[in-house]
Amino acid sequence: MQHKEEAYSTIHYHSYLQLDKILDAQAPRSEALGNPAHDETLFIIIHQVYELWFKQIIHELSSVMDMFDNDRVDERNMGVAVARLDRIIEIQKLLIDQIRILETMTPLDFLDFRSYLFPASGFQSFQFRVVEVLLGLQNSQRLTYHNTHYASVFAEDQQAILKKMEEKRSMLELAEDWLERTPFLNTGNFNFLQEFTAAVKEMLSQEKQAIRDTTALTEREKEMRLKMLGDTDTYFLSVLDKSQHEKLLAEGKLRLSYKATLGALLIHLYRDEPILRMPFELLERLVDIDELFTAWRYRHAQMVLRMLGKKVGTGGSSGSEYLHATAARHGIFSDLHNISTLLIPRSSRPELPPELKKQLAFHYSVK
Amino acid sequence: MQHKEEAYSTIHYHSYLQLDKILDAQAPRSEALGNPAHDETLFIIIHQVYELWFKQIIHELSSVMDMFDNDRVDERNMGVAVARLDRIIEIQKLLIDQIRILETMTPLDFLDFRSYLFPASGFQSFQFRVVEVLLGLQNSQRLTYHNTHYASVFAEDQQAILKKMEEKRSMLELAEDWLERTPFLNTGNFNFLQEFTAAVKEMLSQEKQAIRDTTALTEREKEMRLKMLGDTDTYFLSVLDKSQHEKLLAEGKLRLSYKATLGALLIHLYRDEPILRMPFELLERLVDIDELFTAWRYRHAQMVLRMLGKKVGTGGSSGSEYLHATAARHGIFSDLHNISTLLIPRSSRPELPPELKKQLAFHYSVK
Amino acid sequence: MQHKEEAYSTIHYHSYLQLDKILDAQAPRSEALGNPAHDETLFIIIHQVYELWFKQIIHELSSVMDMFDNDRVDERNMGVAVARLDRIIEIQKLLIDQIRILETMTPLDFLDFRSYLFPASGFQSFQFRVVEVLLGLQNSQRLTYHNTHYASVFAEDQQAILKKMEEKRSMLELAEDWLERTPFLNTGNFNFLQEFTAAVKEMLSQEKQAIRDTTALTEREKEMRLKMLGDTDTYFLSVLDKSQHEKLLAEGKLRLSYKATLGALLIHLYRDEPILRMPFELLERLVDIDELFTAWRYRHAQMVLRMLGKKVGTGGSSGSEYLHATAARHGIFSDLHNISTLLIPRSSRPELPPELKKQLAFHYSVK
Amino acid sequence: MQHKEEAYSTIHYHSYLQLDKILDAQAPRSEALGNPAHDETLFIIIHQVYELWFKQIIHELSSVMDMFDNDRVDERNMGVAVARLDRIIEIQKLLIDQIRILETMTPLDFLDFRSYLFPASGFQSFQFRVVEVLLGLQNSQRLTYHNTHYASVFAEDQQAILKKMEEKRSMLELAEDWLERTPFLNTGNFNFLQEFTAAVKEMLSQEKQAIRDTTALTEREKEMRLKMLGDTDTYFLSVLDKSQHEKLLAEGKLRLSYKATLGALLIHLYRDEPILRMPFELLERLVDIDELFTAWRYRHAQMVLRMLGKKVGTGGSSGSEYLHATAARHGIFSDLHNISTLLIPRSSRPELPPELKKQLAFHYSVK
Repeated sequence: MQHKEEAYSTIHYHSYLQLDKILDAQAPRSEALGNPAHDETLFIIIHQVYELWFKQIIHELSSVMDMFDNDRVDERNMGVAVARLDRIIEIQKLLIDQIRILETMTPLDFLDFRSYLFPASGFQSFQFRVVEVLLGLQNSQRLTYHNTHYASVFAEDQQAILKKMEEKRSMLELAEDWLERTPFLNTGNFNFLQEFTAAVKEMLSQEKQAIRDTTALTEREKEMRLKMLGDTDTYFLSVLDKSQHEKLLAEGKLRLSYKATLGALLIHLYRDEPILRMPFELLERLVDIDELFTAWRYRHAQMVLRMLGKKVGTGGSSGSEYLHATAARHGIFSDLHNISTLLIPRSSRPELPPELKKQLAFHYSVK
Repeated sequence: MQHKEEAYSTIHYHSYLQLDKILDAQAPRSEALGNPAHDETLFIIIHQVYELWFKQIIHELSSVMDMFDNDRVDERNMGVAVARLDRIIEIQKLLIDQIRILETMTPLDFLDFRSYLFPASGFQSFQFRVVEVLLGLQNSQRLTYHNTHYASVFAEDQQAILKKMEEKRSMLELAEDWLERTPFLNTGNFNFLQEFTAAVKEMLSQEKQAIRDTTALTEREKEMRLKMLGDTDTYFLSVLDKSQHEKLLAEGKLRLSYKATLGALLIHLYRDEPILRMPFELLERLVDIDELFTAWRYRHAQMVLRMLGKKVGTGGSSGSEYLHATAARHGIFSDLHNISTLLIPRSSRPELPPELKKQLAFHYSVK
Repeated sequence: MQHKEEAYSTIHYHSYLQLDKILDAQAPRSEALGNPAHDETLFIIIHQVYELWFKQIIHELSSVMDMFDNDRVDERNMGVAVARLDRIIEIQKLLIDQIRILETMTPLDFLDFRSYLFPASGFQSFQFRVVEVLLGLQNSQRLTYHNTHYASVFAEDQQAILKKMEEKRSMLELAEDWLERTPFLNTGNFNFLQEFTAAVKEMLSQEKQAIRDTTALTEREKEMRLKMLGDTDTYFLSVLDKSQHEKLLAEGKLRLSYKATLGALLIHLYRDEPILRMPFELLERLVDIDELFTAWRYRHAQMVLRMLGKKVGTGGSSGSEYLHATAARHGIFSDLHNISTLLIPRSSRPELPPELKKQLAFHYSVK
Repeated sequence: MQHKEEAYSTIHYHSYLQLDKILDAQAPRSEALGNPAHDETLFIIIHQVYELWFKQIIHELSSVMDMFDNDRVDERNMGVAVARLDRIIEIQKLLIDQIRILETMTPLDFLDFRSYLFPASGFQSFQFRVVEVLLGLQNSQRLTYHNTHYASVFAEDQQAILKKMEEKRSMLELAEDWLERTPFLNTGNFNFLQEFTAAVKEMLSQEKQAIRDTTALTEREKEMRLKMLGDTDTYFLSVLDKSQHEKLLAEGKLRLSYKATLGALLIHLYRDEPILRMPFELLERLVDIDELFTAWRYRHAQMVLRMLGKKVGTGGSSGSEYLHATAARHGIFSDLHNISTLLIPRSSRPELPPELKKQLAFHYSVK
């Protein structure tokens, strides 16, 4: 550690946290306009708290993206990356819980100052847009209001920053690059895709035979079960089909490349192998973050609906329509989310060859 | 207090809680079938816990309904009713939090025993249906699967119980009866509907004039604001219109009678008057319960989606469609929820005449 | 509503929330000193968030204290007061939950910048001291460090503010004043203290007789039970004794006057009577706030212990001693907390005379 | 997967969960005795839920202990072990949150049935004792009541089970065995203890020199800082001293062996090395579990105090004394907790030799 002179200057909590600035930044409009509304202070403070947490999320997310913006992610960083995503997750949970504080403000209390805020709105949170863009939300996924670009509400310098960010690789794309580099998809005598496809077929065929042979089911029940298996059959084969995958990508129904998808599937299936443990945790965290943002949007919409009723979007869209639309919005990492569709029971999973198992273990353990 | 002989028999925690039964009720299918799956125990226990809490919710809800199943609700019971609904709310929050425990089971772990459970499903929870029926969920609001009646999965005696319950007044209907009896809608020189309508008109007209007069807005901004006010205008008048209300009731778009709706509006607007405080709390709690059930359904659907991916509803409906449908489902107390649409700022609210204010206060305070 | 010109100036989220100030107030010392530590940003932001919430708590608490700083508290305000205390409670819960975000920082990560912060400390939070003083914490209840006055770490103007606040009536004292004014302690033919004392004696004597008469207990069990009742007996009578109460007050073991204590007891016992409902809720909220501050201190101490281990208070006091001391600290409203010691079952509670019951009801209901 | 005949028998939710047993196990004493108390149902159900969760905790904990009851823990199991401890942690959080449901029962409501339960008590929960014994709580750490052995309240067969469990290795001891086997404490040219001691000395001596040299501090401040460093100095050297450690072990002030402590310290310091990541997570989880049990005891004591006031432990011990004693109780894994006392900043940490770093990485990465 460097021991600079200034390292010893005496620090005070108040100046260190710049509380003069922080605690002097609440100026209720209702007071300025001569009709003080008690609850406007809460309204201001809770939004300032949200923005502080958004800043923290951006700090964590950017640092993780820096680690992944490399041809090879340092294994020592995987644990750090997971821990930082965990921190984002804890913050997200708090952001959701925090809504209950805003809900202590009743609609009647909100009406005391609501008209003074026009047309300010949470849609004008620059940092929230930054988080969305960093994660990888696409413009095509955004709900539009009055046909204007989401960024048009920001100052020009902020618009420029967003534009530049949109051109760089998002967390989703960096994760995709990294998944595509998964080195165990095809090594020596192990071809993952081939082995996995064979295992799925074997599993389904055994299952069908057992249904046909059992005496515990009626003919109608057998028929129903076999039909369901047939659907599963078709489903698996279509998903594992490369050209089908490319088609869905082109249509915008998928975002993760075929190779990256296989990488994610392999990580899920063999996550107990030491080298795949942290990659598995990382994929889980990305899905958690996605889910929590969706949950936050949902809870937020629910709160707005309660506060304003059908007054929301007076221009046309009603609150319940908005709620609808928000809940249905596709997540950013939904392709990772959907990996579970492809999983098969451990008992049907292809066995890894010993040489490969060795590669996946620690050097100390297998040298 | 009666002092019966048996009041002194010695009680032990173990027998009092009947733990021999409770802790002997976990029989994993995977074990019985010779392929023990570690996580099946969690799956069983968490669902048993859910059912215990459903029993508690039914206990509380029924007791509140008994209090309201009277021509006159005893004022002394209002606080008790609110406290019991509060307890339901705390339980609901726990039910939602509890999902994160189930989420510690990964899709791969679930696959180890999933096939043994066919076709058991949470749709077969009798108590959950009881809660829905008691609250007032209508059959028309239910999602149907394979065109079968929701109750067809239950034993005949259970079907009979549900049928009988459906014929009795639900919590929603009991609340409606009680709201219709709100005595202050039309007393002496105070006609609430008339006064409120006048106040809305006055408020909107003042607002319009102020917009026209201001120099702070451009002509385009003025136009936009005036248009929004115009919409609000139409909205208020249509909502306060009795025949319009009857029409929406007939179409199934509303459930709460015109008179009950006015009662709820009056309670919201004048909730600080002592006699209206507890009624206001009660309406809030009903909306809370509604919201929390919706939130629970949503979180549950999100969890199922993560566990099974697009495998859900192999017969046809995909997980994301289900998620969609669940989130969009109308709540039971949504008419109470929507009261906030009708609220106006306290500054525009009609003043209550002194004689009425006296009626709304405590006897001690005004004698 | 006044419609001033400036009410129509266009408001933007960014300027309304003064985000230029809020988001520019994070200056990690580790960066300034050339050894950037990733986690210092979290450390700064979480403490800024704490301070914002403290400001909100002060806003709510002060407004409630204003309502109580009157010879007669307006009944219409009781609901508002309870709602604002509820908001403080929700904020406190969040403050506790928030600790888990700080716990995502490991001890090793903290060491990367800890030495740069010396001697800044949470003990230097002015607003937290304000909250304590407003609630009614006494200097004698504070843990002292190095024998210095708690306020000596603040700037002179802040010290002056604290001193002035200490001289005004705290929330505890305002609540005491209000409880002493409880008008139903002695009205007409009802003397609460006398009736309650008689009821306690009757209850205990019936209970003793029943124990002596039962055949369900052995002689040894009877003896044990009777001894317990004897203790209870002594306890009740000593607590209800005025001179005993004055003695404990003088010794600093109690803070609430005899009369206020009886008022609180009456409110607890007859809380279902309409006029006592909100007073009961208010007393409950004060105890909640007390408990949550204690819980916050405890969780905070636990977190510090984990972060620093026995390094805490290197000057002498070890972390575990501090934890000990904090958990044992007496709360501010503990006399209200202890009211439950005096409660007796409803079945033994003295009946209120009809005339008094009428006074406690709504004017409308009993006119 | 085996396809036995019975795998196809149709399963119903109701019978699978044995709901006939589960939902028929609530028999309020107050009802049997003819004075039904509404809230007794909650009291029964919440305790049944606690017991179901205790069963789940035992299921998870036992499975982790089985993995560690081996001369060599399979690396593939480390992730599974951490995940199962995580599940225990999530359950513990719920157990704590659940207390707020019990707190919806007020003291007055509890008094309606309290006397019927005598002398049943949570101290009679067999499963909770099992959890304590499995984790490694020692009899000497227990608070005793009336000088009786904690197990004397159980049936003989349960006492026998507890006794046998106490004789087997607890989770604490299994973790100790495993830590003692940490293979990197002394390998080739790296002697961890020696290197670490040298690093601590170097760090402290540099720090002292810098303090002496700086002009930013007054002489008095320098003196104070140097004194603190002196204390730290003494502290580190005493803790790293083997004979000192043995002495504290003998006195019962420590439980973890010297070698295991060094293993845990090494894991903490070099946790980013791939092979140490999961071991680090595991140690963290054990400390989490410890903290959460302490927090649970604390919250539980707080709730009891509120419910009963000073009535608690009528025989003598008052509620606040109990609260005191509980919070101060030493945890089971406190030696792991205290590892943070020994940590030094990364910048002062001894560098690992390249050959050792290779051993700590994945085979694939370094072959």
